[in-house]
Amino acid sequence: MPKVSAEHSEARRAEILDGARRAFSRWGYEGATVARLESETGLSRGAIFHYFGSKLDLFVALAIEENHRYISLIVERGFDDALRSMANESPEWLGMLLEIQGRLRHDPKFVEKMEGMSDDRERIAAWLQDAQARGELRDDIEPVHLGRFASMVLNGLALRVAGKDPVDVEPVIALLHDALDHRTQEALTE
Amino acid sequence: MPKVSAEHSEARRAEILDGARRAFSRWGYEGATVARLESETGLSRGAIFHYFGSKLDLFVALAIEENHRYISLIVERGFDDALRSMANESPEWLGMLLEIQGRLRHDPKFVEKMEGMSDDRERIAAWLQDAQARGELRDDIEPVHLGRFASMVLNGLALRVAGKDPVDVEPVIALLHDALDHRTQEALTE
Repeated sequence: MPKVSAEHSEARRAEILDGARRAFSRWGYEGATVARLESETGLSRGAIFHYFGSKLDLFVALAIEENHRYISLIVERGFDDALRSMANESPEWLGMLLEIQGRLRHDPKFVEKMEGMSDDRERIAAWLQDAQARGELRDDIEPVHLGRFASMVLNGLALRVAGKDPVDVEPVIALLHDALDHRTQEALTE
Repeated sequence: MPKVSAEHSEARRAEILDGARRAFSRWGYEGATVARLESETGLSRGAIFHYFGSKLDLFVALAIEENHRYISLIVERGFDDALRSMANESPEWLGMLLEIQGRLRHDPKFVEKMEGMSDDRERIAAWLQDAQARGELRDDIEPVHLGRFASMVLNGLALRVAGKDPVDVEPVIALLHDALDHRTQEALTE
């Protein structure tokens, strides 16, 4: 495939994802009809389903993209910025995402699609290990458990934002930081 | 009302809640029809709706009861036991609870019912303040933020259990503990 065409294809894909995200946020998953997906993306159903086979595929792609964005944020800029970004998400978007992910979580088709398309798990595992080696993160607890704890805090924050509950993210950042800090380990095991 | 009658009424109420919890876990909120609520509680619709005006009221009562149970666990036995209890919840029950709470969170009728029936917020606030005064919890961060952080971890764990993702609760307990510990504050501000 010539380079220009691949770029065009990538841009079109991103355009569809943007529109679909708006449609899902606004009308929920069921409410985001094909007509509404067309109107939010400005593209025909033919174009949309050329890039994504079904509405479920579109949702899965958005969920993977969202996950990928957070892994990148963490790896490139740390948990603080990931938490700040989460605190600024749209409640409607997060509410939709959490609800549909929850509903689909035990659907084998969904699980397979989510599994098959991402190497983000290894990326975060390597980053956690490096951060331990650099002495930033405590190393008395396995890296996988540090990562899970941080993701629980992120998901707990997501639930809070989705619920439009008051959010002051700075204390959350400070507390997660202290939980994972290498100096905490030293102080508490002395 | 004579004492025996109040006790009987309380027992009957608890019986209905138990059955409704089973019905919701098994068939989801929509799937828990009146017939299924009857069969799980072993009581007639007349008896059920004598105690709870509607299916929504039944759900709200269960959500409040669940919240109350966790507040009591925290206040009486601390965050460790609350996390352990959450790790052992039924995934089906938590999945249903999170999904329906999420869906109803912006419904004014639901919000009003949840608000009107609980003084648990003050109970946990007082407990956090006492724990700071006793020197157990750090006091460089407002108690409300310590409570919110712990509830984010609990909710993040609930999402994980609901998703049937692997859960090893002991590292979560250790990390939350260290985040909130008074000695962490001392170590990191020296």
